[in-house]
Amino acid sequence: MTDLKLKKITIIGLGLLGSSLARVIKERNIADEVTGFDISEAVRARAEEIGLCDHVEADIVKSVADADLVIMAIPVGVCGAAAKQFINTMKAGAILSDVGSVKAAVMKQIEPILPDHVHFIAAHPIAGTEQSGPDAGFATLFDGRWTVITPSENVNAEKLKLLEKFWHDCGSDVEIMDAEHHDKVLAITSHIPHLIAYNIVGTAADVEEVTQSEVIKYSAGGFRDFTRLAASNPTMWRDVFLNNKEAVLEMLGRFSEDLTALQRAIRWGDGEALYKSFERTRDIRTALIDAGQETGKPNFGRDKPPAENE
Amino acid sequence: MTDLKLKKITIIGLGLLGSSLARVIKERNIADEVTGFDISEAVRARAEEIGLCDHVEADIVKSVADADLVIMAIPVGVCGAAAKQFINTMKAGAILSDVGSVKAAVMKQIEPILPDHVHFIAAHPIAGTEQSGPDAGFATLFDGRWTVITPSENVNAEKLKLLEKFWHDCGSDVEIMDAEHHDKVLAITSHIPHLIAYNIVGTAADVEEVTQSEVIKYSAGGFRDFTRLAASNPTMWRDVFLNNKEAVLEMLGRFSEDLTALQRAIRWGDGEALYKSFERTRDIRTALIDAGQETGKPNFGRDKPPAENE
Repeated sequence: MTDLKLKKITIIGLGLLGSSLARVIKERNIADEVTGFDISEAVRARAEEIGLCDHVEADIVKSVADADLVIMAIPVGVCGAAAKQFINTMKAGAILSDVGSVKAAVMKQIEPILPDHVHFIAAHPIAGTEQSGPDAGFATLFDGRWTVITPSENVNAEKLKLLEKFWHDCGSDVEIMDAEHHDKVLAITSHIPHLIAYNIVGTAADVEEVTQSEVIKYSAGGFRDFTRLAASNPTMWRDVFLNNKEAVLEMLGRFSEDLTALQRAIRWGDGEALYKSFERTRDIRTALIDAGQETGKPNFGRDKPPAENE
Repeated sequence: MTDLKLKKITIIGLGLLGSSLARVIKERNIADEVTGFDISEAVRARAEEIGLCDHVEADIVKSVADADLVIMAIPVGVCGAAAKQFINTMKAGAILSDVGSVKAAVMKQIEPILPDHVHFIAAHPIAGTEQSGPDAGFATLFDGRWTVITPSENVNAEKLKLLEKFWHDCGSDVEIMDAEHHDKVLAITSHIPHLIAYNIVGTAADVEEVTQSEVIKYSAGGFRDFTRLAASNPTMWRDVFLNNKEAVLEMLGRFSEDLTALQRAIRWGDGEALYKSFERTRDIRTALIDAGQETGKPNFGRDKPPAENE
């Protein structure tokens, strides 16, 4: 295949990620046609209403007909079951991909059912918000973010190039990585952060001596930051943890070990140990800001900041 | 004292909180005169340069002379030692207060050295950013936030009213609370969030299989949210943990217990337990947004959001 132009792209799942993809493909004319499928009738109706795609299909098999690229933007636990329904009817030479936050488990689901005429290449755009659904997406979601592609060893080089170009067209930088390594990196940069955010919001809700109203009123002391991640899609995150068990448990073990050391320093009044731990973390934020992955505005810029920071 | 007008306010410590106070006092004309003291010569020089206060004093005793209200905006561990230097020379009837995130320990430091002619009333404005120093402050920092005042039992009602009025003038809502209860509430809404933010940023820095550059590149997956709190002033936070040991250890115990339950659910593949935990936390964020304590914009509004959310 020498023609790098995509004619038709099908998006399976029109939530935050899927609807952002549909928007950016249309806005930047990345393909001639974008078709969307969603299992929910309400989501399909909403997608029609807001003109998200050129076509919205209620039948998953029909939705992938003639598509050069099919992207599954659905929870990682159901990728295999979804693909099983349509994978054999895909166009010869077409690419199947996904956007899931776990890569090894998704590849394990797809590989046994993959017909010779379809190229499966797993991918993960590291971008998102805490919001869900077809209205939550926006075309600039991937701008300046990284998409990690985790091809199998026998990947077709031209199809890989095509998928890389697609993500570049969506505004994203691309990195090629081994799936197992991806899953470890994401365990510490994304999965554990979500787990402890969900956890502390749950813990705060359960403290008997502190009322819900107090938690809300005084959340600007730090707690509110965690409520963002803890507002993320529960189905998606359940599936992430069930499908990246090993790496998550390993990183969680490290996190808890480190936390126990801080706890011990507090119990024994070891101010020097606490200071040492707290002082080395500021540089990482500076590096994130310098790398364009974070805003330098105080409080993420959310509270009426000083005029000179506007 | 029937006159509720403050003539002179002295701010001890010109960091984020102290410099925000100086700015709001001047901008909103809350007192006729604001004098600042800081132990650091560089900070004093900078305060002079940017015209933060009417007077900057290098001598702490001179700085409080004739002040109606003296506010310590310094780490909670040094409030007693600082006050000891000037408390006896304060004007008769003057109020001494603070802004520390721990209240019982500060009251315990001040009460044994408190002369009869001074009124000590502890307070805590629950507002801040991750930035430090005299340039980080801004006049609107306290707008729409809560200040908790934790008076002792024998507080002078008029002086309390004066301090309440002061914080209202600064833009803050005021709540009166018992110091021990304050310390429990803040342990869960502020101290534990900071501790686990510092902890995960440290853990991520130490994982051998994942490079620092990978942590930075892929931080938009969630990790970056935690780097904000982990960029906070290390001296201030060391003192908070050393001075609110009991409440912090209790809340940390609850947090770890809950986290162990999630860990177990992941290990045993209990998707239902995970889903249940993740689904109940979204409402808390909605409540925070409704209470005006958080922005409703996706990603705190920091990433080029969709036009309709601007």
